[in-house]
Amino acid sequence: MMIIMRPGAPKDQIDAVISAVEKNRLIAHPIFGLEQAIIGAVGDGHYVAKEIFEAFPGVLEVQRISKPYKLASRQFHEQDSVFPLDGFSVGGEGIAVIAGPCSVESRSQILEIAQAVREAGAHALRGGVFKPRTSPYSFQGLGEEGLEYLVEAREKTGMPIVVEVMAVSQIAMMEKYVDVFQLGARNMQNYNLLRAVGETRTPVLFKRGLSATIEEMLMASEYILSGGNKRVMLCERGIRTFETATRNTTDINAIPVLKKLTHLPVILDPSHSTGDANFVASIARAAIAAGADGLIVEVHHDPANAISDGKQSLTPEAFAKMVQQVKIIAEAVDRKLAPISHVTA
Amino acid sequence: MMIIMRPGAPKDQIDAVISAVEKNRLIAHPIFGLEQAIIGAVGDGHYVAKEIFEAFPGVLEVQRISKPYKLASRQFHEQDSVFPLDGFSVGGEGIAVIAGPCSVESRSQILEIAQAVREAGAHALRGGVFKPRTSPYSFQGLGEEGLEYLVEAREKTGMPIVVEVMAVSQIAMMEKYVDVFQLGARNMQNYNLLRAVGETRTPVLFKRGLSATIEEMLMASEYILSGGNKRVMLCERGIRTFETATRNTTDINAIPVLKKLTHLPVILDPSHSTGDANFVASIARAAIAAGADGLIVEVHHDPANAISDGKQSLTPEAFAKMVQQVKIIAEAVDRKLAPISHVTA
Amino acid sequence: MMIIMRPGAPKDQIDAVISAVEKNRLIAHPIFGLEQAIIGAVGDGHYVAKEIFEAFPGVLEVQRISKPYKLASRQFHEQDSVFPLDGFSVGGEGIAVIAGPCSVESRSQILEIAQAVREAGAHALRGGVFKPRTSPYSFQGLGEEGLEYLVEAREKTGMPIVVEVMAVSQIAMMEKYVDVFQLGARNMQNYNLLRAVGETRTPVLFKRGLSATIEEMLMASEYILSGGNKRVMLCERGIRTFETATRNTTDINAIPVLKKLTHLPVILDPSHSTGDANFVASIARAAIAAGADGLIVEVHHDPANAISDGKQSLTPEAFAKMVQQVKIIAEAVDRKLAPISHVTA
Amino acid sequence: MMIIMRPGAPKDQIDAVISAVEKNRLIAHPIFGLEQAIIGAVGDGHYVAKEIFEAFPGVLEVQRISKPYKLASRQFHEQDSVFPLDGFSVGGEGIAVIAGPCSVESRSQILEIAQAVREAGAHALRGGVFKPRTSPYSFQGLGEEGLEYLVEAREKTGMPIVVEVMAVSQIAMMEKYVDVFQLGARNMQNYNLLRAVGETRTPVLFKRGLSATIEEMLMASEYILSGGNKRVMLCERGIRTFETATRNTTDINAIPVLKKLTHLPVILDPSHSTGDANFVASIARAAIAAGADGLIVEVHHDPANAISDGKQSLTPEAFAKMVQQVKIIAEAVDRKLAPISHVTA
Repeated sequence: MMIIMRPGAPKDQIDAVISAVEKNRLIAHPIFGLEQAIIGAVGDGHYVAKEIFEAFPGVLEVQRISKPYKLASRQFHEQDSVFPLDGFSVGGEGIAVIAGPCSVESRSQILEIAQAVREAGAHALRGGVFKPRTSPYSFQGLGEEGLEYLVEAREKTGMPIVVEVMAVSQIAMMEKYVDVFQLGARNMQNYNLLRAVGETRTPVLFKRGLSATIEEMLMASEYILSGGNKRVMLCERGIRTFETATRNTTDINAIPVLKKLTHLPVILDPSHSTGDANFVASIARAAIAAGADGLIVEVHHDPANAISDGKQSLTPEAFAKMVQQVKIIAEAVDRKLAPISHVTA
Repeated sequence: MMIIMRPGAPKDQIDAVISAVEKNRLIAHPIFGLEQAIIGAVGDGHYVAKEIFEAFPGVLEVQRISKPYKLASRQFHEQDSVFPLDGFSVGGEGIAVIAGPCSVESRSQILEIAQAVREAGAHALRGGVFKPRTSPYSFQGLGEEGLEYLVEAREKTGMPIVVEVMAVSQIAMMEKYVDVFQLGARNMQNYNLLRAVGETRTPVLFKRGLSATIEEMLMASEYILSGGNKRVMLCERGIRTFETATRNTTDINAIPVLKKLTHLPVILDPSHSTGDANFVASIARAAIAAGADGLIVEVHHDPANAISDGKQSLTPEAFAKMVQQVKIIAEAVDRKLAPISHVTA
Repeated sequence: MMIIMRPGAPKDQIDAVISAVEKNRLIAHPIFGLEQAIIGAVGDGHYVAKEIFEAFPGVLEVQRISKPYKLASRQFHEQDSVFPLDGFSVGGEGIAVIAGPCSVESRSQILEIAQAVREAGAHALRGGVFKPRTSPYSFQGLGEEGLEYLVEAREKTGMPIVVEVMAVSQIAMMEKYVDVFQLGARNMQNYNLLRAVGETRTPVLFKRGLSATIEEMLMASEYILSGGNKRVMLCERGIRTFETATRNTTDINAIPVLKKLTHLPVILDPSHSTGDANFVASIARAAIAAGADGLIVEVHHDPANAISDGKQSLTPEAFAKMVQQVKIIAEAVDRKLAPISHVTA
Repeated sequence: MMIIMRPGAPKDQIDAVISAVEKNRLIAHPIFGLEQAIIGAVGDGHYVAKEIFEAFPGVLEVQRISKPYKLASRQFHEQDSVFPLDGFSVGGEGIAVIAGPCSVESRSQILEIAQAVREAGAHALRGGVFKPRTSPYSFQGLGEEGLEYLVEAREKTGMPIVVEVMAVSQIAMMEKYVDVFQLGARNMQNYNLLRAVGETRTPVLFKRGLSATIEEMLMASEYILSGGNKRVMLCERGIRTFETATRNTTDINAIPVLKKLTHLPVILDPSHSTGDANFVASIARAAIAAGADGLIVEVHHDPANAISDGKQSLTPEAFAKMVQQVKIIAEAVDRKLAPISHVTA
């Protein structure tokens, strides 16, 4: 931490800051410049908030040096985290592809789509049963009934199921059904929910918030990790910018940046990050070329009549084609689609 | 709704869209242009999601005409909503000022600050007891103990208390203590929480999300309003942009835009929207000059030692000065500080 | 400047950075932390670019302490800069109002509008003769003919004229006509143009770029100031964000931030910053309440038939009303409309 | 164009709009909805600005249907534009790689780097001689002397040279030296410059502005194309967002979006779009995987001592490795590095 004093800050203000630094078990190194003093605060500052010093009289600004997160950091866990799911592993050499509809709409719908994406090469099945809709008047999901259909789809295809959890009160019930909890973009800083999910041992697919920085995403992931749940996949799903040609702006830079900063697996959601089925395959290829460990993609057998996200859903045929392209790109970067160890169906 | 077809879309695609329009109880008016057909969908389209049509084959894009919200809309409720709180009213001619610390830190702290802001002219007291901190290693709030201190402050000063609720599970307990639920920026699209708060009859101070559009904020407010809870104040608190000179960018345009679109009271939080005590009074004045109905401001008697948000907290003296400036601006726009009907302390 | 080394950077890398610091006539103060070394570089670093150090092996990042601009800085010029224009002063106690159409469309148009805004209390007349249009197929301005009409309007009303200059080649010709050069948002970083304008002694109204930070704006203003042209007014005109309810987002925070950082006068353009005549008066009031030194406003006697910017242009009647409101707000913040020393017409 | 009237707009306002539509040689199709009227304006509206209608009394808003550009549009020129440069073609099956230093610093520097990038597989050489620096106190480029060095490098290596032009006054002189004019991000809406470059027959590498939308970029390109200069490459180089982990945010979505909207070649600049040499190769691979036609990359033989952009410059070795990776990705998407037809050196 570097604490920059205002030009002309008197000695007693500087001393007060030095005391505060020492109170936080850091060592103070003052430097007296031409215009102002700067106090270096050295030690294990990961969990010392910079705002502690910002409001001291005479302080101009405080700049962090060490990262404000630790468990997620590659500095403290050099090797890539790899964790097995049912039938494949996430985070190693293999590329994982999660696919399925935005919402579970009916038994036949999810069974049909599950079969199709499995045949096309998907590793896991996604499907929402509680939907965070921007309007209260839109379809809100099938709830537990939807989970039963997903379980049936898992039994028939062998794919683990990935389902968004939206509230603490849903966790206990959902834990019995799902293989991976998805935490949605709108809940990236819903800390109660993060903490509660961190106390389970169900793997988590953790989506970046629409306007969250990469650093904030990593800090938020500490809420889960610090509860002891180590199996967290990070998911870039597009950020909000001024550009309106696409639903969101895919922050492709986030892929290599995250791979450098953290040991956690990093996947990308080209469906939400573009909002348009026309661009999904291009961005899926780009993600893998940039170093992503996997993809989560919306697929629907009848996009025109999908209850939600039809515009950005691939047909099973388009998805199968995308998987083939992704496979070739994976090999071009010396990786491969994650091998599937068994098919129970 | 205007549904714009791709150039060259064949007749059967156009017919399929027309059928879908009619299925949603709207009347279809096709226009055949030089390059493409456009289908106007006329009727009560407030609650028809545009995504229903977006994924149809041949559809290029869909543009809304009617607003996707209704209860919040001034079109359906022309008069300003005014609602009484304990001792004053929000949303009428009077300007309401809510003030207090970011976090309740101790009994003596909140009592001291409450007394000071009341003397300076505040109408209501804010103070957090559950804190949504970006780092799990930061102070997380006093919980119910903090509520008891707030209630004591209310008894001593006569000010109603405004407290952030962060989870559905907190509502029942908090309802017994608080006068106004604050819904924080990070929860603007936590729909379960919105719905649950909408089922109470406790007034709500509803903060805009960091990257939420004005339209999304109004749509989200329908989750509360449609539950029957009509006493919702909207709060602009700064949005996230590329500018880093301030913590957020105050979207001052949102004040007149919201006053035009909705009948709900609109207040501004200059503490979060600037992140710097040096700029709070200027932006507070600007808000009232632009037409805001009130302010919510962070005040701390010892900012240097505040546990959170010290940098953006006014001292009681600076706050008192700000209230005087706001009073003069209010009069300059033919309004006044909201009269306080009684002081119980 | 603080140069933060990577964890584990070897001694020879640290030494190389220290040498580079000294080569730039700064004094190096190394601090050895738990994880990494930090090298403080002390001295007059205003004009030392941080990128000089960023690419050295072992450097993680470089953070500036001193501002990268000097002539514009309040630190080096504590008093507000005040400079007289024809008939009034900018930057002192008085509030200046510049008004007129987006484009000069005809002799009668500009004479009519000039007369109307003068009667309503305007201090100076704006009007474009070279228009930076997003489409090459739109009206591009009357050129020198327009300047002649503006001069006639100046003679008739006594108001100095403010006209945008778009190219170095226009300067010599325009200098003979105009009282203030406007530098438009799209040219904020057109350094050749800035430098050329800095070599004139014509006052400058310098607009912030759509996505320029406040710091970049101040750095760009050094291009003008360092040429010896000291009469620069800074103009906030809205920034580009994700919000689409208004044409731009007025960065009202920029007003107090600029007033703190610089001695130059700061004005606001509520026409471009909102893009909608409905919101101009609200934002004009907010600007003055926040501490702005003036306004520049688009006015047209027939907005529906204006060639450009009709939607955001006030009618003369609405403008007169706005001036009255601004006058009251100015008094509420202990200022007043700038007195007009003579009217030549 | 769809012109949406305010609810309750009287008949004479609707009629006035209909007249204005017809005056612009479009056909008006009014639709009378429950709440408001909508007037469809059908015909060749590409060059009719929507602002013409926005300021009419009673108009709520105007939405475009047809694109506001034509020459750049794929609708009017279905086939990909392919144009030959010296030794290779841009825009066809082959992928072109342009490389070189940010600035030409000396004769030996540019000759050394040119040789190195040619050996690594580059098709063209970049190098700035007029530098748009954010600070007027930074190095501003070698000017014409730099061009002479570039020409010598071209003679020695056979690579055409790509150089940024910053002012109309530089065009005549530069035309004698350069093979491709680069138009920089800060000048994307410097219309005088665009128009002047459009009158030459020198190919153009046209960079997207930091906060320009894809539509604005295409509209600006019409300034060049409408002058008769058809050889324009579009270049995505990162946009400005709230994310600060990288210098800019690479808008990878822009690649497939542009390939759909326009026939012009699309290249990507991973150096500026990331600002960090660590991430350049990942993003270069992603660009090609997403469908880009080429890359422009900063390379320096001694990044630590580069006068500008050292942090984001690849060493020749890292560049050679990147070219190999790009070659493999190109083949994975059924393309290849553009063949080089001759080497004159």
